[in-house]
Amino acid sequence: MPKWEIVEGSLASACGFRGAAIAAGIKKARGELDLALILCDAPAGTAAGVFTTNRVAAAPVLLSRQNLAETHGRCRAVLVNSGNANACTGRKGMQAARESARAAAKLMYLQPAQVLPASTGVIGVPLELDLVTSQLPTLVASLSVEGASAVARAIMTTDTFSKSCVLRSEVGGKPVYLAGVAKGSGMINPRLATLLSFVTTDALFAPRTLQSLLRAAVDVSFNLVTVDGDTSTNDTVVALASGVSGVSVRPGNTSWAWFLEGLTQLCQSLAKMIAKDGEGAKKLVNVEVQGARKPSDAERVARAIANSPLVKTALAGSDPNWGRIICAAGYSGALFDPNKVDIRVNDLLLCRDGVDTGFDEAAARKELDGKEMTLRLDLHQGTASAHIWTCDLTHDYITINASYRT
Amino acid sequence: MPKWEIVEGSLASACGFRGAAIAAGIKKARGELDLALILCDAPAGTAAGVFTTNRVAAAPVLLSRQNLAETHGRCRAVLVNSGNANACTGRKGMQAARESARAAAKLMYLQPAQVLPASTGVIGVPLELDLVTSQLPTLVASLSVEGASAVARAIMTTDTFSKSCVLRSEVGGKPVYLAGVAKGSGMINPRLATLLSFVTTDALFAPRTLQSLLRAAVDVSFNLVTVDGDTSTNDTVVALASGVSGVSVRPGNTSWAWFLEGLTQLCQSLAKMIAKDGEGAKKLVNVEVQGARKPSDAERVARAIANSPLVKTALAGSDPNWGRIICAAGYSGALFDPNKVDIRVNDLLLCRDGVDTGFDEAAARKELDGKEMTLRLDLHQGTASAHIWTCDLTHDYITINASYRT
Repeated sequence: MPKWEIVEGSLASACGFRGAAIAAGIKKARGELDLALILCDAPAGTAAGVFTTNRVAAAPVLLSRQNLAETHGRCRAVLVNSGNANACTGRKGMQAARESARAAAKLMYLQPAQVLPASTGVIGVPLELDLVTSQLPTLVASLSVEGASAVARAIMTTDTFSKSCVLRSEVGGKPVYLAGVAKGSGMINPRLATLLSFVTTDALFAPRTLQSLLRAAVDVSFNLVTVDGDTSTNDTVVALASGVSGVSVRPGNTSWAWFLEGLTQLCQSLAKMIAKDGEGAKKLVNVEVQGARKPSDAERVARAIANSPLVKTALAGSDPNWGRIICAAGYSGALFDPNKVDIRVNDLLLCRDGVDTGFDEAAARKELDGKEMTLRLDLHQGTASAHIWTCDLTHDYITINASYRT
Repeated sequence: MPKWEIVEGSLASACGFRGAAIAAGIKKARGELDLALILCDAPAGTAAGVFTTNRVAAAPVLLSRQNLAETHGRCRAVLVNSGNANACTGRKGMQAARESARAAAKLMYLQPAQVLPASTGVIGVPLELDLVTSQLPTLVASLSVEGASAVARAIMTTDTFSKSCVLRSEVGGKPVYLAGVAKGSGMINPRLATLLSFVTTDALFAPRTLQSLLRAAVDVSFNLVTVDGDTSTNDTVVALASGVSGVSVRPGNTSWAWFLEGLTQLCQSLAKMIAKDGEGAKKLVNVEVQGARKPSDAERVARAIANSPLVKTALAGSDPNWGRIICAAGYSGALFDPNKVDIRVNDLLLCRDGVDTGFDEAAARKELDGKEMTLRLDLHQGTASAHIWTCDLTHDYITINASYRT
């Protein structure tokens, strides 16, 4: 199977794509990029999407779902703004999403349903349609391969760095590219859905194939991240494929496994960046659970630990407080015998058979002082395992969120 | 039905009870009370208990459950320490709980199983049996009516104030007392169980009656509090009844409703104190949900809001960010139509039919600046309702918990 390697680039590294971003005045801070466009120039381009499971879904989420269904996955552009989530904005919010997508479509000679809208920012504040539509002609005119590199920045809210990743592979001498951008960094607890991420590729797909592959990759990447346990109203992952490389991906073919590997690697890279850049976070923490009776038990334990404010504050303070870790496992709902649990930070054993090992405190603190670490639990009940990426909980999370809206 | 009134007093306001507390050196800070005893002098005294649902239960929880079963509810004393949870301490921890209860029982001429042990503090550190047993003779010798007032202080950990409440009623000219103490204030998310609280009364019960009443009162009090969503390994509520008042409580009798009212009022007072004194908390917040299709939907929505770090940080910052409230409702798992939701802080309407009301920002901030407030959601889907007490999430929660253990 051909390998995937990480290369420099942008969403337009995938052939057949252009991008653009502009400061439309939607964000409070003047001059910051807050409106972006991704266009697939290939008429045969396909699209797939995975969206929030929150019952309160934003207008752009509702409309994107509808557009993907209506075009049978033949969408070719994403119009995304930051600074306003366009969620809980009623009929006017839906109208704003629809009108802005329609206006963008017209300028790009597409059908209105071929544009997928996406938004991120504050909930419950009307999105000013004029701010978007008045900038659209300039935005469309500036669509270019170079312009695509600004998209990752334009979708940021409280993120502290922009998140993108580009992979390259070669099939029969033909280069194939897979590129993605994402944003976090609060209200992050995707379950069967996620945050904002956009993926481009120049491989060729039937829309259904792309949708299955995206679903599979998201389940082992974005769905394994949690920052604060809050599942957003706007989570969206969209993949666009131009087919321009001429390399076709079909189910039941080795191309399927090859592409899934690349897409999973891409999504996992972006997902880890999101956990690392959780609001106020200083550390990226991988919670690994093994020896569970069944996979759902392993996942429950990992999620409970990753979402425990007590575990996360202890991580912030480099406190090897494994008692809080086993406590979270205990209330997770998973079945296990507390007297068989082993807990490690990286390779250092803190707790064996449910009791303290008398570990070296200074050594444990050193492991916890790192910027990346793994908490490993072995339940010794069976063979199932799971993992979740999360971050520590610091003063900065409080500072960022006590006055986010105003 | 006779009324219950709040009066000054202690656990020994209920006739037939004595108490004592001592500084045994279990807490890190020297000289702080950390070991207490509650004794029911009446040979016919009964006891009931409700314990954590965490699969990782502390040694004293396991032993107390066992003792209540073994004596058929005829326990007559509680031996409680703070500063060490005696959880995840293996066979030695169980031995420490058993030996200390046995030593205390001997000094008070009780059967070993008549003493209920309880602990609170750090998890995973062995409890030094000697620290307890060496102090027991002094502790037992100082048992007195006056000594009971120190018990509330001796069970504190990160609590900022001691929590107690005494109620008085009169039945046919006979006074009856109900007294309780409790401690919080982190790792608080009781579900069918709770934190530490001890209740005394001089009413007369069959043990099964007392257990049913305690269960019913806990369900509408301690089980409706959450500070951080972390369910502790040590949650314990124990009620002791001396029967000395001569007023008997029986099922199927008006005395049942009368006593349940008092016990519920007592437990709710203590539960609210715990929410108010959540680690780092500055505000007591009542999340009220009405108009749900069924009670479990109402509770899910209330719990999701009360546990959302984003809602709680917004409350800390007095930010009327109702978008986060409806977002939490949306991922709670409850069924409702987002376009019908009304949200109020106290009586001020922030969101009607799922969209912003254009409320006065300054007025909303004023409501949120209060020390106590109610967030009211009306889902307009049915007639079921629920509520949960919680607190805001502040910098102090991080400060307290980033280095609790060391």
